[in-house]
Amino acid sequence: MAPRDRGRGRGSAIRVSFDTRVKYEIRLEAGGFDGLAAEVARVAPGRRAVLVTDRNVFEHHGSAVRTELERGGREVLELVVPAGEPSKTVARAGKLWDALVRAGVDRSTPLLALGGGVVGDLGGFVASTYLRGIPLIQVPTTLLAQVDSAIGGKTAVDHALGKNLIGAFYQPRAVFASMAALETLPDREYRAGLAEVVKAGVIGDAELFERMEADPAAVLERRPALLRDLVRRALAVKADVVSHDPNETGLRAVLNLGHTLAHAIEKIEGYRGALHGEAVAIGLASAARLSKRRGWTSAEVSRRICALLEAFGLPTRRPGLTVEEVQVALVRDKKTVGDSVRFVAPASIGGTTFHWVPVASLARQLVAAAA
Amino acid sequence: MAPRDRGRGRGSAIRVSFDTRVKYEIRLEAGGFDGLAAEVARVAPGRRAVLVTDRNVFEHHGSAVRTELERGGREVLELVVPAGEPSKTVARAGKLWDALVRAGVDRSTPLLALGGGVVGDLGGFVASTYLRGIPLIQVPTTLLAQVDSAIGGKTAVDHALGKNLIGAFYQPRAVFASMAALETLPDREYRAGLAEVVKAGVIGDAELFERMEADPAAVLERRPALLRDLVRRALAVKADVVSHDPNETGLRAVLNLGHTLAHAIEKIEGYRGALHGEAVAIGLASAARLSKRRGWTSAEVSRRICALLEAFGLPTRRPGLTVEEVQVALVRDKKTVGDSVRFVAPASIGGTTFHWVPVASLARQLVAAAA
Repeated sequence: MAPRDRGRGRGSAIRVSFDTRVKYEIRLEAGGFDGLAAEVARVAPGRRAVLVTDRNVFEHHGSAVRTELERGGREVLELVVPAGEPSKTVARAGKLWDALVRAGVDRSTPLLALGGGVVGDLGGFVASTYLRGIPLIQVPTTLLAQVDSAIGGKTAVDHALGKNLIGAFYQPRAVFASMAALETLPDREYRAGLAEVVKAGVIGDAELFERMEADPAAVLERRPALLRDLVRRALAVKADVVSHDPNETGLRAVLNLGHTLAHAIEKIEGYRGALHGEAVAIGLASAARLSKRRGWTSAEVSRRICALLEAFGLPTRRPGLTVEEVQVALVRDKKTVGDSVRFVAPASIGGTTFHWVPVASLARQLVAAAA
Repeated sequence: MAPRDRGRGRGSAIRVSFDTRVKYEIRLEAGGFDGLAAEVARVAPGRRAVLVTDRNVFEHHGSAVRTELERGGREVLELVVPAGEPSKTVARAGKLWDALVRAGVDRSTPLLALGGGVVGDLGGFVASTYLRGIPLIQVPTTLLAQVDSAIGGKTAVDHALGKNLIGAFYQPRAVFASMAALETLPDREYRAGLAEVVKAGVIGDAELFERMEADPAAVLERRPALLRDLVRRALAVKADVVSHDPNETGLRAVLNLGHTLAHAIEKIEGYRGALHGEAVAIGLASAARLSKRRGWTSAEVSRRICALLEAFGLPTRRPGLTVEEVQVALVRDKKTVGDSVRFVAPASIGGTTFHWVPVASLARQLVAAAA
């Protein structure tokens, strides 16, 4: 559309207007990384590729991924960062930018983020800001990343005063999830990832929830066919929400179910206590109990959510929180606007509702529900 | 659109797909900053505003802008950076992020970038990355920024090895261009800004070009009615191009007319020689001469472009460049893909053509054309 010029008193205005179309595929592969090179070639043709990963993931999967990419004719620039949240800093992003500039990486070269949430967030942020954006391919290797963080275009690094405060919405060109990668996942991390699968069920897929409810032991055994089904359904829920609200202006807030308290707990513990998924389990269960008390959901729904989380050996309570510390954390939350939080309640298995709650009041209710 | 699930051998794929609509107005105000508060209220309601500016601009316009915003009921957080390109660093962006976090600036609070290209690029980058993006309002105070850099969503900071290497495409919610701000512009800066107005004419508005050709002296006198007309027409050209290609995937490259050599000259001079607009004047004139030699444009078009730039007292030649230094600069250019540059030729007054030229050959031809 051409801009229009309109007179208006002493001034005039010209309009800029356009639509940007985003479209990408999330591929689930039953096996390892076969087919990754073809996927990269499909979305970002060229002779080079940048591989951002962490030391742990590199040990498990580095050579398989490199071999696959080299077989596809790519020269691979490997950038390996220390594992863990402390790598999500502006300083670390700076080192990666330096490496890309020095290697003369051009705009057409894809960056693959191979790993869990930390690598996806950091690699995604670097891809989004280097030369104003180069093609990003997410290759999540944890359950949490496969069903949640690798999809939806959120990238970020942490600030000394808060997590994920510096970042961008930047959609990947493709997501490649290998089921085989989940086999090497430590038990605690696998269980933590299940909290996001439970969340997906509560938000938008009652059948997913019921399948897990029917046989939690089979889920914990990681039976391949069941596992693939769970991952596929959970990420479909997220993909659906993100498709409708890429930049978190409305609907997307449903994904925040259980996360208000989860983020507060992580903050209070200095990100050295519960894993993210464990904090989400506590947040989900507390949101369910709070919603039951407020009449936003039934006792039965609340009970089923808590029971499923417990069947996965996940924590559902966090006694000893103070209202003050939770309130401080809520005030700093990105999603807090003015003095209120848009709280997501699990209205049913498969559906949510929104409720604006003043920060002070919400802090009190969450502390009580978590105790 | 809901994501679709499709079986595919041992894998399956789910699709994420959406359109993002961008729409914003560029307001030209004949006077000062009256109406700015109303514009801010229209696109980003709330009680606070962040004002990013540099020391020079703050001296000239700081109190007028602050008064206007306060009259509109805003509490203003002023962040004043040193004037000049050295402020466009990741470190400076880091200080601004810190200030925003400490002040508890939330996602709904707008950031106004008041100044020239440096402030617009830096402020825009900070707005694009703080909390994954807060509302950005560009308030350009130089001719160059009003007709070029404030429009189109390019934000960036520099890297030690190159300009604008770290950044994002991030569209403002509004652009507010005060004609009165141009009155305080030093003569050299004003003339430099005219190079981008000439470029706009060559790219897409023959009448704009002819009006300047008809009376260059009146343009240099900054006669208000004429000036407003020039700014309006020049930014309409840019707004039109950007509306069709926000992320520089195709058409938008026409805006690069004259900029391949301009960027190389700035790099070679370490950004301490010619002003950006002066380098663009040399680049435009050289592109015209080169295009005449290659048969991509007529002798007449080439002559008119050079003559108009000279009438504005702008440089059109840069003797003494070496092929090697230009080639090194071209290789590092963001727009170089592989070994070739997509060169923009001024085919006519009001129209351009693209030509892929190998880097080494282009460096030779540009050096000859600039000598």
